[in-house]
Amino acid sequence: MVDEDHSRPSKNLAPIDGDQAARSSKLAVGHRRLRPSVMIMTKVVLNFKTYSEATGAEALKLSRICEEAKDQYDVEIAVAVQAPDIRLISENVSIPVYAQHVDGVGFGGFTGSITAAAVKAAGATGTLINHSERRLRLAEIEASISACRAAGISAIVCTNNVPTTRAAASLKPDYVAVEPPELIGSGIPVSKADPGIVTGSVEAVKRIEPSVGVLCGAGISRGEDLRAALDLGSEGVLLASGIVKAKDQKAALEDLLSGIRR
Amino acid sequence: MVDEDHSRPSKNLAPIDGDQAARSSKLAVGHRRLRPSVMIMTKVVLNFKTYSEATGAEALKLSRICEEAKDQYDVEIAVAVQAPDIRLISENVSIPVYAQHVDGVGFGGFTGSITAAAVKAAGATGTLINHSERRLRLAEIEASISACRAAGISAIVCTNNVPTTRAAASLKPDYVAVEPPELIGSGIPVSKADPGIVTGSVEAVKRIEPSVGVLCGAGISRGEDLRAALDLGSEGVLLASGIVKAKDQKAALEDLLSGIRR
Amino acid sequence: MVDEDHSRPSKNLAPIDGDQAARSSKLAVGHRRLRPSVMIMTKVVLNFKTYSEATGAEALKLSRICEEAKDQYDVEIAVAVQAPDIRLISENVSIPVYAQHVDGVGFGGFTGSITAAAVKAAGATGTLINHSERRLRLAEIEASISACRAAGISAIVCTNNVPTTRAAASLKPDYVAVEPPELIGSGIPVSKADPGIVTGSVEAVKRIEPSVGVLCGAGISRGEDLRAALDLGSEGVLLASGIVKAKDQKAALEDLLSGIRR
Amino acid sequence: MVDEDHSRPSKNLAPIDGDQAARSSKLAVGHRRLRPSVMIMTKVVLNFKTYSEATGAEALKLSRICEEAKDQYDVEIAVAVQAPDIRLISENVSIPVYAQHVDGVGFGGFTGSITAAAVKAAGATGTLINHSERRLRLAEIEASISACRAAGISAIVCTNNVPTTRAAASLKPDYVAVEPPELIGSGIPVSKADPGIVTGSVEAVKRIEPSVGVLCGAGISRGEDLRAALDLGSEGVLLASGIVKAKDQKAALEDLLSGIRR
Repeated sequence: MVDEDHSRPSKNLAPIDGDQAARSSKLAVGHRRLRPSVMIMTKVVLNFKTYSEATGAEALKLSRICEEAKDQYDVEIAVAVQAPDIRLISENVSIPVYAQHVDGVGFGGFTGSITAAAVKAAGATGTLINHSERRLRLAEIEASISACRAAGISAIVCTNNVPTTRAAASLKPDYVAVEPPELIGSGIPVSKADPGIVTGSVEAVKRIEPSVGVLCGAGISRGEDLRAALDLGSEGVLLASGIVKAKDQKAALEDLLSGIRR
Repeated sequence: MVDEDHSRPSKNLAPIDGDQAARSSKLAVGHRRLRPSVMIMTKVVLNFKTYSEATGAEALKLSRICEEAKDQYDVEIAVAVQAPDIRLISENVSIPVYAQHVDGVGFGGFTGSITAAAVKAAGATGTLINHSERRLRLAEIEASISACRAAGISAIVCTNNVPTTRAAASLKPDYVAVEPPELIGSGIPVSKADPGIVTGSVEAVKRIEPSVGVLCGAGISRGEDLRAALDLGSEGVLLASGIVKAKDQKAALEDLLSGIRR
Repeated sequence: MVDEDHSRPSKNLAPIDGDQAARSSKLAVGHRRLRPSVMIMTKVVLNFKTYSEATGAEALKLSRICEEAKDQYDVEIAVAVQAPDIRLISENVSIPVYAQHVDGVGFGGFTGSITAAAVKAAGATGTLINHSERRLRLAEIEASISACRAAGISAIVCTNNVPTTRAAASLKPDYVAVEPPELIGSGIPVSKADPGIVTGSVEAVKRIEPSVGVLCGAGISRGEDLRAALDLGSEGVLLASGIVKAKDQKAALEDLLSGIRR
Repeated sequence: MVDEDHSRPSKNLAPIDGDQAARSSKLAVGHRRLRPSVMIMTKVVLNFKTYSEATGAEALKLSRICEEAKDQYDVEIAVAVQAPDIRLISENVSIPVYAQHVDGVGFGGFTGSITAAAVKAAGATGTLINHSERRLRLAEIEASISACRAAGISAIVCTNNVPTTRAAASLKPDYVAVEPPELIGSGIPVSKADPGIVTGSVEAVKRIEPSVGVLCGAGISRGEDLRAALDLGSEGVLLASGIVKAKDQKAALEDLLSGIRR
């Protein structure tokens, strides 16, 4: 699981059905200039934050919903869970489990820090870094990405606008995820409210470090939001409350994933 | 385990052997002015930091060494482990497992935070707060203590001198642990280098909030260091590298605990 | 000016008119148990924040309005200005000029820090510490208070609730200023929305460190707000937007100060 | 002064003497690929930190020494002073005065912050950002650079290695200044201890954003250090203790500047 996840997942696509092939080929066109010979599987990262609906036993329950949904779509779903929950989830589901934060430190006298080595040991195959709710200093982001690379886990660096996306991409994480902070948790999808930040980020990354994948987030919850995000050139989405806090998490997730087909 | 730990452990002492009774009665004298009718069991908190010798499988191994040693002495040993390791340790050993840090936030949009609820769910019965390597803002310390209280776990607030010990004690955590930062990891025990900071902290807490226990730390590793710490009026010690990084962790721990008997 | 300010101003009151004597004597009763033989002059601290209406030349203009108003009331008005403006203001007005923040560091390699020595050299006679918009770690607050003491300037530590007020007071600053963060800038005065936080803070400080003065803030702008704050036992108020952003700053200040008389 | 400084100083070189012309032409060759038609004047930024030898009246004295030295060499010397000293220095010397830090906020409720507008109003024409002793979050660096641009002052972003230099340059500040933290204050010049970090930074910036100037720092104090820094392709140096804490500041500065002539 680790290897697949770390080495940029989904570059080889298994045979897919008609609808999916149509979209994939459309997507592939959009991406062809970036990575001519690969097809990119849509990536959905569900951030559990510290929501009660996604802590401890509830976190495991929601992860299982994601695992089931994933089997029905040509999509990679990763769950970004709280550090104390990583082991519980990774031991019980087969989808990638991410940390929500990794400090830019290694082994040593760093009481209270979350290290890449420790989350890897607990079963994580990736992590968010620099989420809007856990911003890091520039040097820490760089050190955290290096620590992830050394530990063999994926790093998704969150950013808030096109210039910070450029800067983050120049550090060569696996992904950047651009999220205008004012839209996080708003229910207003970034793809509608500020499509330029997505296309601008995709453009900037393409020029500065084309090997870095681009996700977008903030306000995403419906299938049409995911669809729009992909149409704007991103490879997937980072989302949270729209699914986690939905009355029916499973139905919400299925609505979201419906944006992939057709 | 949680209840015992949270309600200030060790207020009821099981029958003990001669040497131990002698020391306990001596200790009890020292503490009588504070808490007339209880006897205080010595508390040792071993901070695993992010040392490689105390991460993942190694953390479990060291916790087992602590568990065994504990059975031979009239002492409470708690291990303060990295957040991703809490569940692994708490499911496999019977001694109290602590977190190294808890943020002053609850359920909600706090990506990357460590909450009291999540560490409790993973099996922790207490936590360090405000360690010198993870200092918090005053308002955060207060919020973190409140969160621990709400979740039913113990809170040990680390401090760096007598004034900050006073301030921390006024917030009514279960314990304060005073550690002069310059002695941490130095091998020079606080009980020798700066005994006044220990007696001053004990005095200050006695006056401001006598229900709060006082630990001390920094440079502690030998039995004589622990002994001196108890003689200065503390209820126990917080330590790390002296044991974790010892060539023979078991022997180092036994040397330390020898300070309790006789 | 420094000496007067630092040694807790206003312990000797000049002859005052009838109304004022009445309130002072009422206040004095409330404070008699604390400080038997002194009468406390009301203290108003106006926080300029980084408002455009209080930056550079505008900061000087507003300071002059404060200086004039002060002469008409039995009150001490201090202005808490941005660090780059301290010298400009202190060289041109006679009222106390405060910094808005002082780091807990001294001379040395602390690029970008604001030191007590530097703000003193520029003419400041006091400072806010730990404002809700610039929270500090506990150890930093203690170090900052020590640095202020060493430099001979007053320290007002801001707090957010009764427990943090207790903790801050135990560090023996000149004043604590309690401000519920959710009311800051709200226009809803703390004295109405949460009077218990003011009386609770006054009580707590009286017990733990009676030499420390208590101010309150958040949502204060009218004379009646100041009046209520004094009636609840505080020695004065910390306020900002209600005056700084008023269309007519002079009129707003006079409305506020009208709360002192009668 | 502001305009000259902000619009990248020194693009027009006054007639210079032989030695200087030789070096300039050599330098110009090195830079020709970057900026074909301009010659770059060497830039020396002296960081006063919070040293007692560079606070208040002492800061003014040292600034005057810099002003005098500057007239004798074809060099731009800027002094980066503490915020409360900006006005004092800028009103009394003619060389550029920089702040040591600017927060990424504007006008508003940001108590204790240092804004670009306020340092500009006090006479600063530029600022350091993200110094190793005052690291900022990525989003803050971006916001601070934007604020500097809006206020019309220069921004020098400090970095710690080649990847962070790349990231910082991608945000288009006026300069980046790369300084390995472990060499700061060490007396061991970066140009000797780690020349690759300088050439690597110059290379990276050239590729990613050639309009950004590159300085280097850490351990610089002698003329030969400055010389080596220029030979490695940087446009100048950022330094501090080597001059500020020298027994004879004037002599130390002259030794440094001798690295320009020959």
